[in-house]
Amino acid sequence: MRAFIFGAGGHAAAIASVLETDVTFVVSDDLAQPGQMLASDFFSRIDDFRKAAVYIGIGSNAARREIYDKLTRFDVRAANCISRHSFVARNAELGSAVAILPGSVVGARARIHDNVIVNTLSSVDHDCVLGSHSQVTAGVTFGGMVRTGENCFFGIKCGVVPNVVIGNNVAVMAGALVVRDLPDDVTAGGSPARIIKKAGTRARPDVINGGPFLV
Amino acid sequence: MRAFIFGAGGHAAAIASVLETDVTFVVSDDLAQPGQMLASDFFSRIDDFRKAAVYIGIGSNAARREIYDKLTRFDVRAANCISRHSFVARNAELGSAVAILPGSVVGARARIHDNVIVNTLSSVDHDCVLGSHSQVTAGVTFGGMVRTGENCFFGIKCGVVPNVVIGNNVAVMAGALVVRDLPDDVTAGGSPARIIKKAGTRARPDVINGGPFLV
Amino acid sequence: MRAFIFGAGGHAAAIASVLETDVTFVVSDDLAQPGQMLASDFFSRIDDFRKAAVYIGIGSNAARREIYDKLTRFDVRAANCISRHSFVARNAELGSAVAILPGSVVGARARIHDNVIVNTLSSVDHDCVLGSHSQVTAGVTFGGMVRTGENCFFGIKCGVVPNVVIGNNVAVMAGALVVRDLPDDVTAGGSPARIIKKAGTRARPDVINGGPFLV
Repeated sequence: MRAFIFGAGGHAAAIASVLETDVTFVVSDDLAQPGQMLASDFFSRIDDFRKAAVYIGIGSNAARREIYDKLTRFDVRAANCISRHSFVARNAELGSAVAILPGSVVGARARIHDNVIVNTLSSVDHDCVLGSHSQVTAGVTFGGMVRTGENCFFGIKCGVVPNVVIGNNVAVMAGALVVRDLPDDVTAGGSPARIIKKAGTRARPDVINGGPFLV
Repeated sequence: MRAFIFGAGGHAAAIASVLETDVTFVVSDDLAQPGQMLASDFFSRIDDFRKAAVYIGIGSNAARREIYDKLTRFDVRAANCISRHSFVARNAELGSAVAILPGSVVGARARIHDNVIVNTLSSVDHDCVLGSHSQVTAGVTFGGMVRTGENCFFGIKCGVVPNVVIGNNVAVMAGALVVRDLPDDVTAGGSPARIIKKAGTRARPDVINGGPFLV
Repeated sequence: MRAFIFGAGGHAAAIASVLETDVTFVVSDDLAQPGQMLASDFFSRIDDFRKAAVYIGIGSNAARREIYDKLTRFDVRAANCISRHSFVARNAELGSAVAILPGSVVGARARIHDNVIVNTLSSVDHDCVLGSHSQVTAGVTFGGMVRTGENCFFGIKCGVVPNVVIGNNVAVMAGALVVRDLPDDVTAGGSPARIIKKAGTRARPDVINGGPFLV
């Protein structure tokens, strides 16, 4: 089956590495290289691709959500990308456009909402709930029963102890250890994590893989 | 083969998610829900279940040991729960009632004693020895040749560098990095880890998944 | 096919645990035990072993390089040891004498040069480049697009955020989080990592699994 991946950067390459099929990368500007397709061309011919698998290969939460929303408007439900080198419990629930990358673990009764990335060697343990449009980057550990809101970002090697509740638009810095609930719209860092500023992912549309971090 | 899991909380759900069979959860009080069994009923009919696989699905070290001891008195050897999504070296040695959960690694010549949990995405490297009734929670890294006593607890994302020797009843806080030997009955935290108080897991029967941690 | 592993310590045992064949350990001194072979005997009979697989099972970067160089002089290309419990992207490129141990992940378009160890449950994400004769120990996380020089050492549970460039002969301490480029010949530790001293792995030929670390 033909597969399309929105994006052509590092995360798109990661998605492609997990799929066992040839893919066409779909890019948003006129920098398309040979073998890539312009997003404008994709949407103008959308009815030709109704049977294709469509993945969103974009790391930035904001940009990933934009594509997700556009696909939804065109009545396209993006596919989940579940690595065979991951573990997803049978009774976990996944939305659409979810990426579970190599080495990661999604535990019993966990719920991963739409358009979430669980990146390399990260774990989301039993009974966790991850809100839509969030990214768990690489080497992240969630204890059991953690709940997060939408549009959160978890930097590399951060951790969240069990039972913590995290709001919407929260950015957790690389290496942080979250041991207490966090409200909406904050950035937290350190071990134990403290609120560094009253501005989470919403104020940082540029948040990408691994950042922000304390320097 | 019929399988029973003692416990009905998060760790029991994690055990169930790894088994590829239907299970009956065995609970200790009268809150048994449909499909669950009371422990008192289990033990009163124990001879009916001699051929069943029995697992201990309890995170708390103290409560898990209590069930282990009771099963031993009834001459029941609890089964090991080894995820197919883990790696256990052929020459590693496991006791009974051991849980090796998804994504975890047990290295060459390691010895895991009875009733130990090696939780999600944790590694116990070559030549390590883990004492009975201990729990390694999620995202924990042991270097090679680490040895621990009985009834230890390792919080999420902690690490132990190679060759360290740890006593009995030691609690290592989430996110700690242990770089020196630790005596019996202490709680250690921080990076590098220091002894926070002279009370380890024995003084904290309530230690559960992910805790204790610095706040 | 007959297999030889240079070394007989912990890392050699780790290599052996991944191979699904019987092995002969090759040791460098006269302490050879039954079933082991002296390196001097191996090289004096090298033409008998041209069809055998030869692995380098030595953790120390300096000692591992010495064997690598000697094998090269004898025109022996050491084999890669890739655990079936790892993930290596199809378009990643590996040199020779590379070890990818259980639970580890090598991402899309990553390049791992000769004689590198990626140890237990560590990840080297998309587009990373690891220089020859380096060791990534256990539980280490590299974000995407990190580049390192030769003869680097990454202690357990350290992390490197995306896009960082690291020089030659750099030692990163256990638990450190590298968020900025590092020049040649330094040792860095802490979170965020700072240069602890102007002496990297070159000044520390004794650096082994998990060390150095802050105490």
